[in-house]
Amino acid sequence: MTFIEQLSAAWQKNNSLLCVGLDPDPAKFPAHLKGRDDKIFEFCAAIVDATADLVCSFKPQIAYFAARRAEDQLEALIAHIHEKHPGIPVILDSKRGDIGSTAEQYAVEAFERYKADAVTVNPYMGRDSVEPYLAYPDKGVILLCRTSNPGGSDLQFLETNGEKLYERVARLAAQEWNTSGQISLVVGATFPAEIARVRAIVGDIPLLVPGIGAQGGDIEATVNAGRTANATGLMINSSRAILYAGKDEGFAAAARKVALETRDAINQYR
Amino acid sequence: MTFIEQLSAAWQKNNSLLCVGLDPDPAKFPAHLKGRDDKIFEFCAAIVDATADLVCSFKPQIAYFAARRAEDQLEALIAHIHEKHPGIPVILDSKRGDIGSTAEQYAVEAFERYKADAVTVNPYMGRDSVEPYLAYPDKGVILLCRTSNPGGSDLQFLETNGEKLYERVARLAAQEWNTSGQISLVVGATFPAEIARVRAIVGDIPLLVPGIGAQGGDIEATVNAGRTANATGLMINSSRAILYAGKDEGFAAAARKVALETRDAINQYR
Repeated sequence: MTFIEQLSAAWQKNNSLLCVGLDPDPAKFPAHLKGRDDKIFEFCAAIVDATADLVCSFKPQIAYFAARRAEDQLEALIAHIHEKHPGIPVILDSKRGDIGSTAEQYAVEAFERYKADAVTVNPYMGRDSVEPYLAYPDKGVILLCRTSNPGGSDLQFLETNGEKLYERVARLAAQEWNTSGQISLVVGATFPAEIARVRAIVGDIPLLVPGIGAQGGDIEATVNAGRTANATGLMINSSRAILYAGKDEGFAAAARKVALETRDAINQYR
Repeated sequence: MTFIEQLSAAWQKNNSLLCVGLDPDPAKFPAHLKGRDDKIFEFCAAIVDATADLVCSFKPQIAYFAARRAEDQLEALIAHIHEKHPGIPVILDSKRGDIGSTAEQYAVEAFERYKADAVTVNPYMGRDSVEPYLAYPDKGVILLCRTSNPGGSDLQFLETNGEKLYERVARLAAQEWNTSGQISLVVGATFPAEIARVRAIVGDIPLLVPGIGAQGGDIEATVNAGRTANATGLMINSSRAILYAGKDEGFAAAARKVALETRDAINQYR
């Protein structure tokens, strides 16, 4: 199955547009995990097992693993998701972006080493920096378009030929680069009007929407702006608000409770 | 010493603007190395030892290590450069780019784990995606501005408020973000006129210039366009043309020969 097929199946099966972002910061882990060598894996696997029936995807953020020399735990985590929760796609959030020959190496990293189903990619270097990922026909490529951070406007909001740069990225991605149907886009929840602009440009392409939860994006406005005609089309990401909902041995149950509330809050507006 | 101070010292001591890019592809290694477990380290360390007196910096490309689960060899390689060739700065070419909290993790990866002296960063997500690297006052941050690949023009050459996007990035980086003097810029050698434009915008900020050698950029035009008043200001990168100059046990000597020729070709036009 392709990433898009897996995602569509997970939207239906779990009745969910929620993506749980796995940004494991050991400083925030419950005390009983802190002494363990494999604590990053253990923490994330517990979150995954507690929420897998409530999500359309999981999104591990590679920086949190790389900063702690924990690539082996990231490999183990993705293998765990594939084995225990087949059908839930894994998005490797690495935001890579480089010339073609180097992008080929990053595609090997994402798809052959980590066996992710999709990867986030930065569009600044243009089409040939994206194509090596598209050479894996079952995989998804999720391009940064409009990001949810304060500096996101520094470049993305610049006017160019009558449109904003992020709109140009959406147009290029959807109308020129997406010949194989593998491309999705990142559009931050802190800008619902811009989610609507991107949706108008790209048709039914899936949108990965970070920024609800800890970053403060509004769920109702996000869903209204971004859903497709069949009330899907979105992977609405929440990371910290779910991961760190509880601080003790009940952290996974606390995460499940927030994930359930978030899924249902999203569904209320579909 | 800061990255900029190390770089300035290496420009003088080795009379060189050459940066050797370490993009180790085991398929291109000499046969006698291919069976070794640590072949990536051994290959790169041999190149480093054969060229260290001819360069102003080394630039390992992390994708080539990550694709082969060889982060440990990258750590060992950078430690080897620091130990055997003190004073030659190491640029980790990882082109990271993410929101502040994640960029903090990537900064830990680059500067605390790998102990790089500088890191390449993608500007698409704006100022707060760059600031966490600047929190390390001795380190350099090298922002993508104008890249040497065919798709580089897709976004970077768009007109915005009377200038190209890459010019806007140069202006933002040099005039707004570079309050601490830690920022350099990447400008590809395949566009000498654009190197000159960037130089005019940014003053004496160092430019990392990929694209000579295998990518075909012209050395004379690059030096003329990019040098500063004291005939430095450039890190002119060559990777494949040096790394794979020889195919057998003499590969390091062959690499040295091409590195020497390249350094001297650059110096001819300073």
